[in-house]
Amino acid sequence: MSTTVTFAPAPAPAHTTRRRRQQSAVQDQLRGFFDARTASARSYGPSFTRLWTLAARSVAGGKLVRPMLMLDMFDALSRTEDTDDGEGETLIEIAAAVELLHAAFLMHDDVIDGDLTRRGCANLVGALLDETGDGADRTQPELHWARTGGILMGDLLLAGVHQIFARAQLEHERRLQLLDLLDHTITESVAGEDLDVGLSAGVVEPEIATILSMSSCKTAAYTFQLPLRIAAVLARAGAEVDTVVSTAGRHLGLAFQLQDDLLSMFGDPLHHGKDPLSDLREGKQTAIISYARRTDAWPAIAALFGRADLTADDGAAVRELLIGCGAKAFVEDLIEEQLAACRTMAEAADLPAPARRVLLDLVDRLDGRRS
Amino acid sequence: MSTTVTFAPAPAPAHTTRRRRQQSAVQDQLRGFFDARTASARSYGPSFTRLWTLAARSVAGGKLVRPMLMLDMFDALSRTEDTDDGEGETLIEIAAAVELLHAAFLMHDDVIDGDLTRRGCANLVGALLDETGDGADRTQPELHWARTGGILMGDLLLAGVHQIFARAQLEHERRLQLLDLLDHTITESVAGEDLDVGLSAGVVEPEIATILSMSSCKTAAYTFQLPLRIAAVLARAGAEVDTVVSTAGRHLGLAFQLQDDLLSMFGDPLHHGKDPLSDLREGKQTAIISYARRTDAWPAIAALFGRADLTADDGAAVRELLIGCGAKAFVEDLIEEQLAACRTMAEAADLPAPARRVLLDLVDRLDGRRS
Repeated sequence: MSTTVTFAPAPAPAHTTRRRRQQSAVQDQLRGFFDARTASARSYGPSFTRLWTLAARSVAGGKLVRPMLMLDMFDALSRTEDTDDGEGETLIEIAAAVELLHAAFLMHDDVIDGDLTRRGCANLVGALLDETGDGADRTQPELHWARTGGILMGDLLLAGVHQIFARAQLEHERRLQLLDLLDHTITESVAGEDLDVGLSAGVVEPEIATILSMSSCKTAAYTFQLPLRIAAVLARAGAEVDTVVSTAGRHLGLAFQLQDDLLSMFGDPLHHGKDPLSDLREGKQTAIISYARRTDAWPAIAALFGRADLTADDGAAVRELLIGCGAKAFVEDLIEEQLAACRTMAEAADLPAPARRVLLDLVDRLDGRRS
Repeated sequence: MSTTVTFAPAPAPAHTTRRRRQQSAVQDQLRGFFDARTASARSYGPSFTRLWTLAARSVAGGKLVRPMLMLDMFDALSRTEDTDDGEGETLIEIAAAVELLHAAFLMHDDVIDGDLTRRGCANLVGALLDETGDGADRTQPELHWARTGGILMGDLLLAGVHQIFARAQLEHERRLQLLDLLDHTITESVAGEDLDVGLSAGVVEPEIATILSMSSCKTAAYTFQLPLRIAAVLARAGAEVDTVVSTAGRHLGLAFQLQDDLLSMFGDPLHHGKDPLSDLREGKQTAIISYARRTDAWPAIAALFGRADLTADDGAAVRELLIGCGAKAFVEDLIEEQLAACRTMAEAADLPAPARRVLLDLVDRLDGRRS
């Protein structure tokens, strides 16, 4: 259900050393979080310890796209790069929490989708299953136990994120602002996921407006808006800047999710690691499908859409139909619109120049991304 | 997996009016929480709104055992019953959050167990399913969507609990104490659930020590220790009282969980609403089974244990075997031990008399409970 595709980390800005130091500080912070939790888990026996160990491993490989976006924007909005030590520590803690929120969402997402891999590697559920014996030995109770591990670890990480936010060494007012953002983000993301699954199940009507709202909620809130808005709060940038980065995050997030849909359907699977037939087999309701539904090509597409036994040739045929009926071009235009709107707004907004650069840089990186 | 059985609310103490006022204040608080969330949900469409509406309904029927335990102990530990208004409000907010934590656990529990009912009524997943058409129309995608709703609402409530704790109008130090308790409680409860599912799946060895640890973690932490310890923190009762109520909570929780196992197997289903064959069919690893495993009766029990096609006669035969081999008596003795230990400790502890009375009253209520 969720995006497996991501965008490359930002090209190193002038202050590469500071950026590298921040990135490894976030990694250390995450390692510290998991080390402490794994150590406490030992008193509950090997099963719970293994759950934490495997969770740590599944989080360790991340590119830290969201924490680094937050830190880049914070630097861009701050008058000085020299934050005092206590403040710098809080910054890194919150950045790590943003990554943990991403991990928590992925875990519940994977359970909901029944996935055992992510980007070609075993995810947490897959890793838990591997612990119980080789593929042939896997029984239904073991799969159930592994999926339970995915639900429970998602809960533990979600709780962990809140603990970090609630303990942030800030004035209480500012802490409340961060908690508001977290609350809003979780509501948006969960509402998006609920819509997504409801659309696939046929419980929600696949209107284009609903699909765009779902696409925006699922991705924009936690991947773009949360990191950018936290940066604005911590840099004490004021309400106007918050509105600008929030709007920018919505445009970027929607563009990103729509690109994801296009790449899953038409992209090179070698680049983004997703089976090009999986969305079609699942019957995933995307903006592409929603457009196609209103064209003459739909009966031919509908005959193949959502079939678990779809062949590679069927897939190629559907792709041709989606191109022919204009669905691909329609979504490409939507993406261009979102990126253009973001660019125009960033150029006109009353923002410090470095912050404007971060936003324009994001637009450039998303424009024409291939993976 | 979790307890469907509960104990009756405490007999009304002398100050019945205050207690009734507190209970309805907690109910109002919960109603306010769900009303606000349901109102915000409307902007995400009917699917998300329905999810909140049904969640509110599933929480509304609760007996508020845990919040009332917290409030009773708070009153017993406080020098005066007249807390100032702000403090009283915080007390009620935290009491409501304790109930929301219970609800969040139940939701994920029900998803993990694949249950559609609780105490004879549709649970959240069952209620969501009912919305999609009558029984005969239920399809796999609709069931998947309903279960997803259970996972997502559990996440939202877990997040909501943390928001309430993080925003409590207290000195930051005291807020941190509450957050520590919440953190510890979630770890214990999740570790217990992980063990429980691991035991059923055969991934964890069914040693008696493991089963007792699981039984204690699953129930004692969030049903007894959390409410009692929050009361101690909010009443500023000090570390010694915290240790006493924490130990009492562990004894009471273990006794409660063991009683639950006994009642599920031997109790009157009319009183506690649980199918007397379900634990046997599931192959649930309880202290009763663990004891029986080491007796000569085990081969005969093992032939029927965990069979999905168990008949009522098979069930009666297993129950006879469990009584005959001494497993029932063994667990009854364990329960008596826990209650006696709690009673002795409460009588000897340096506690204000009303607090001692709350603990002894709990022991009396659990002793010989039938539902």
